[in-house]
Amino acid sequence: MTNKDDKSGLRQAGRRRFLHQGAGMGASLGGAAALGALAAPAARAQALTVPPWTREPGEPVLWHAYGQPSGFESNVIRRNRGAAPMPGANSSMTPLQDLRGIITPTGLVFERHHAGIPLIDPAQHRLAVHGLVDRPRIFTMDDLVRLPSVSRIHFLECSGNTGREWRAPSASSVQISHGLLSCCEWTGVPLSVLLEEVGVRPEAAWVLAEGADAATMTRSVPMAKALEDALLVYAQNGEMLRPEHGYPLRLFLPGFEGNMSIKWLRRLKLGRAPFMTREETSKYTDSLPDGSARQFTFLMDVKSVITFPAPDHRLRDRGFYEISGLAWSGYGRIQRVEVSVDGGRDWREAQLQDPVLDRALTRFRLPWRWEGGPAVLQSRAIDEAGNVQPTPAQLVAARGYESTYHYNAIQAWRVAADGRIANARA
Amino acid sequence: MTNKDDKSGLRQAGRRRFLHQGAGMGASLGGAAALGALAAPAARAQALTVPPWTREPGEPVLWHAYGQPSGFESNVIRRNRGAAPMPGANSSMTPLQDLRGIITPTGLVFERHHAGIPLIDPAQHRLAVHGLVDRPRIFTMDDLVRLPSVSRIHFLECSGNTGREWRAPSASSVQISHGLLSCCEWTGVPLSVLLEEVGVRPEAAWVLAEGADAATMTRSVPMAKALEDALLVYAQNGEMLRPEHGYPLRLFLPGFEGNMSIKWLRRLKLGRAPFMTREETSKYTDSLPDGSARQFTFLMDVKSVITFPAPDHRLRDRGFYEISGLAWSGYGRIQRVEVSVDGGRDWREAQLQDPVLDRALTRFRLPWRWEGGPAVLQSRAIDEAGNVQPTPAQLVAARGYESTYHYNAIQAWRVAADGRIANARA
Repeated sequence: MTNKDDKSGLRQAGRRRFLHQGAGMGASLGGAAALGALAAPAARAQALTVPPWTREPGEPVLWHAYGQPSGFESNVIRRNRGAAPMPGANSSMTPLQDLRGIITPTGLVFERHHAGIPLIDPAQHRLAVHGLVDRPRIFTMDDLVRLPSVSRIHFLECSGNTGREWRAPSASSVQISHGLLSCCEWTGVPLSVLLEEVGVRPEAAWVLAEGADAATMTRSVPMAKALEDALLVYAQNGEMLRPEHGYPLRLFLPGFEGNMSIKWLRRLKLGRAPFMTREETSKYTDSLPDGSARQFTFLMDVKSVITFPAPDHRLRDRGFYEISGLAWSGYGRIQRVEVSVDGGRDWREAQLQDPVLDRALTRFRLPWRWEGGPAVLQSRAIDEAGNVQPTPAQLVAARGYESTYHYNAIQAWRVAADGRIANARA
Repeated sequence: MTNKDDKSGLRQAGRRRFLHQGAGMGASLGGAAALGALAAPAARAQALTVPPWTREPGEPVLWHAYGQPSGFESNVIRRNRGAAPMPGANSSMTPLQDLRGIITPTGLVFERHHAGIPLIDPAQHRLAVHGLVDRPRIFTMDDLVRLPSVSRIHFLECSGNTGREWRAPSASSVQISHGLLSCCEWTGVPLSVLLEEVGVRPEAAWVLAEGADAATMTRSVPMAKALEDALLVYAQNGEMLRPEHGYPLRLFLPGFEGNMSIKWLRRLKLGRAPFMTREETSKYTDSLPDGSARQFTFLMDVKSVITFPAPDHRLRDRGFYEISGLAWSGYGRIQRVEVSVDGGRDWREAQLQDPVLDRALTRFRLPWRWEGGPAVLQSRAIDEAGNVQPTPAQLVAARGYESTYHYNAIQAWRVAADGRIANARA
């Protein structure tokens, strides 16, 4: 709510108090001297007035049998950069600037579709498993939900997330720059259970996964990943998948680029070599300065971003703020996040919210006092494998300017003296 | 989807395969002999038919800017036992029988209201803190969201959950018997931060918490709990609270009975003694056989329930099933869950899903083969404090039959030979 207009004298009083007496976390956030302003008669009268919602009974129980957000939160929605040539081949972003903690509510989990959202009847849906297997088989959803299951909290990120920062850093919103990113509790059947069921032939080294959407989205998955921790997911944050996230069945590959976690999964074919589908030849590859291309860049690199304050917010008063953001890595757990408020000269270690989970979003926080002058805020994540999030210059030195995918550089937000916040490289 | 009619020959074939070749977790779930049935021409033809959702592009991106469940899941909703004399003084239950993992999607988190759901404008909402404090103060929501925050995954259970099992075990649905139970990621300000801000006087021993609903719901909280881990919560599963869960601000007391986590929190008053509100005298107390009453029964006891299979489901075929359920305790982490399928003669240790979190729902699972005869399924939880979930007889021996709240006995589901499932004590 920090970006709403502030017309309340009471609120101004509160802000001044944080300003003049506030301190960092662990210390008192104020002193007795400022109390006068807050205990002023006008403020007291406002608080003691009985508001309408206390005078009358409210909406009945089961006002919504399936609950919805408050009407006052109607601005917290998925958004995209605008229309695409084909309305079904587009993406929408998660409003990271409005979220707290690590779980993304399912209604706000980002979307990326290649031919729109198919509306699939689960009773009619089938998963065929064939190719280099001993017992090719067709599974119904009822078959699959009876198999042994696991639940895991993992992030999901599109490999194109933040891709526009390579050449033209311009995003004026963390939703638009980093919002192809979400984190949920996923439940499903380990793919290894299914593969044991059908019997993998020794020569099988790759799995083709195919979606039931009109794009029949296809990717090749190495057998090692399929056996290690790939899931056939049917539930997300407790309930069955939503249509836009693959209902009734999707592949989920922890730590891998999002497009490989094929939605609306209808077919798995085992083969000797990668299948070289259009999504791994014409797309999801990156050109390098020497003219070669990176292909099969499965793992998402270590990355972080400050979600508050971000260009979506405006600081209205000097004083205490809690810098907050998200860090993640396809290589495992986040080990450390460092934050700079002075453009990268000094770095302080942020606090990580427990539990820090394997290949999940990790919330970091750092207390900060804004003194009203310009500031540049940045975060840098380090994962348990020792990977350090690079600067944009380091990333460009390694990969050049022709890449679209796997941009993971440090993001800098510039705070102006008037409290407005912008992309520091825009 | 296990309780839907099964008209598919393919599915029948699959079931027979689990029946004849299936085995427990870790072993192959089938053998080659059954493949013939699944590879029959009719089944193959069905799978190879291109369904309508593959032939035509689907719904566009941002079909819903805030996502909604599939229309095929319209049966997965909150429910209650029926109308109450006052439509706002009632509850709704979470459909535990349809959920997976530990996170409850916010749209399905149970409700309990005393005077309906107030629709509060967060810009107008105030929290007053007064009584035995050095600096009484009124906070706006903008004040509160600027303070240091934490996020924690915890269960929330109404102390009346499963209360009807004391005298008249009758629930024919785990949603109705145990559905006043949910688990979310909660984000807010530690109450200790706020209390340091206002300065607690040495003689303060209790905190009165008051809601802004038309019931001005009030409870007394011991100062030790207020300082230890109480939270002023504004976000749930990542986004701002929903109206029915206290928008824009609620108290949250990990492990305590749900009614004390006052929703729509508008006032905290510090005092020397409990305030003896109507919610801790006429309600939320339990009569004992000797005529005395239990009062201030804050902590929720160790408890568990099997959510699949439950009376909401029906087993259609013999063979492999994964028994799955939830365990929780207000005393800390769940240490162990044991499951019996033979009415309590033999108990096997269930697998607990990692991470097992402090005062959070814990998912347990156990592979099972149903041989088609009668069976009685039960789960028994043990927490890290050593508390063991009692049998109904043990609970009655300790507390008699006049209690309503804090029923935590072992729940037994009876499976009949036809696959129907019932409350074993009904």
